[in-house]
Amino acid sequence: MTYCCGILVKDGLVMIADTRTNAGLDNVSTFRKLHIFNQPGDRIMAIASAGNLAISQSVLSTLSEGLENPETGEIETLLNAPTMFQAAKRIGRAIRHVSSTEGKALQAEDISFDVSFLFGGQIAGAKMRLFMIYPAGNFIECTVDTPYLQIGEHKYGKPVLDRAMHYDVELYEALKTGLISMDSTMRSNIGVGLPIDVLVVRADVCDADLNHRIEAGEPYFHDLRSRWSAALRAAHQNIPRPPYKQD
Amino acid sequence: MTYCCGILVKDGLVMIADTRTNAGLDNVSTFRKLHIFNQPGDRIMAIASAGNLAISQSVLSTLSEGLENPETGEIETLLNAPTMFQAAKRIGRAIRHVSSTEGKALQAEDISFDVSFLFGGQIAGAKMRLFMIYPAGNFIECTVDTPYLQIGEHKYGKPVLDRAMHYDVELYEALKTGLISMDSTMRSNIGVGLPIDVLVVRADVCDADLNHRIEAGEPYFHDLRSRWSAALRAAHQNIPRPPYKQD
Repeated sequence: MTYCCGILVKDGLVMIADTRTNAGLDNVSTFRKLHIFNQPGDRIMAIASAGNLAISQSVLSTLSEGLENPETGEIETLLNAPTMFQAAKRIGRAIRHVSSTEGKALQAEDISFDVSFLFGGQIAGAKMRLFMIYPAGNFIECTVDTPYLQIGEHKYGKPVLDRAMHYDVELYEALKTGLISMDSTMRSNIGVGLPIDVLVVRADVCDADLNHRIEAGEPYFHDLRSRWSAALRAAHQNIPRPPYKQD
Repeated sequence: MTYCCGILVKDGLVMIADTRTNAGLDNVSTFRKLHIFNQPGDRIMAIASAGNLAISQSVLSTLSEGLENPETGEIETLLNAPTMFQAAKRIGRAIRHVSSTEGKALQAEDISFDVSFLFGGQIAGAKMRLFMIYPAGNFIECTVDTPYLQIGEHKYGKPVLDRAMHYDVELYEALKTGLISMDSTMRSNIGVGLPIDVLVVRADVCDADLNHRIEAGEPYFHDLRSRWSAALRAAHQNIPRPPYKQD
């Protein structure tokens, strides 16, 4: 299982991904799911992946090697994409390429072509953007009305985002909310776990403001988890008992 | 969509069910999903249903009319079941009966046989029990380690149950926690909605302590929702910002 979320606010972009992978419950490993493509000052792009690890790794390798554009002959990668929209389309094409080469063999083994990506970043001179790319290679873009996107085990961590996240939230407040969302997910699904990779990018800088891995036992994240738990307990206790029946 | 939860604590049983049904997003209705079978002092049983409404209603009607036991010739219903375990098995048999008569026609229309039930209650002289019954007619029973079961849209409302619910929680505190769980679900899935039906049964009474419908705008539930929201906002604000980067 996996949980990744991307948050796009006025001040910039936050991307958070866990690192736990599992093939059944008896084969649990740690793999990085947040991948950063950076040419400081020119562009920064990040991809977070969920789904079948063999597929997502193949898509990333395909993007790194580049796919030839049949019309222009150009070898297209993320780093030479002219815009974020074109870059998102290249991820979609890479997914379709992997699907065309691997899909049938997977289907024969009853393995669905399950993969999805968050793709965020900025190319100098254009605006910062965040996309969610589906297994069919199509995608949606994050907008100011709902300034976040999620892939993987998204339900447990969605309520806190729905309540607290809006486009004007300060960048590191957005990171904090994303970490609470990750905590909620980790508590309810053991398939999502530490370490957690975090990327924070300030708008119009085209470089990472923070590229950090939160390991187990890190004091801040440990404190966040304890405070959130204690506050939820207190919130719960402070609500009066239902008055429907007095006894 | 649907959300129902059943909570079995030391003092008794709480069952909570929403009432929203939908066939697509353009056909939303209100149907009671919590059904109570009561012979005060002798037995009280409650069934909450999720899944395909035609199937769950057929199962309930089959149980009400009774199914003939091929070995004894007896017409078996919930009200003449000797034990809660036997009653749960009768629900399972009713599901299998409906599956055998309806399943093939549904399958031909590509409609899965999707139905599940919570079944809780007590027969005088025996202990109070709570079961979750699957589409195959098999079932699990709630135990003291995890004193709740859920059907339908269970993920959004699970974290608060995981954090706050244990076997020694007072009965109306358990109801309160169940209502917070319902609130969390309603906020994140518009397929789950008011009114909410609530049943509270005190252990060894074999009658409803509370059989109540919470309508939209009811002051206590409205207050619970506001307090929970405000407390979550405050909890969120009281957590310090991540220290990873000072700016």
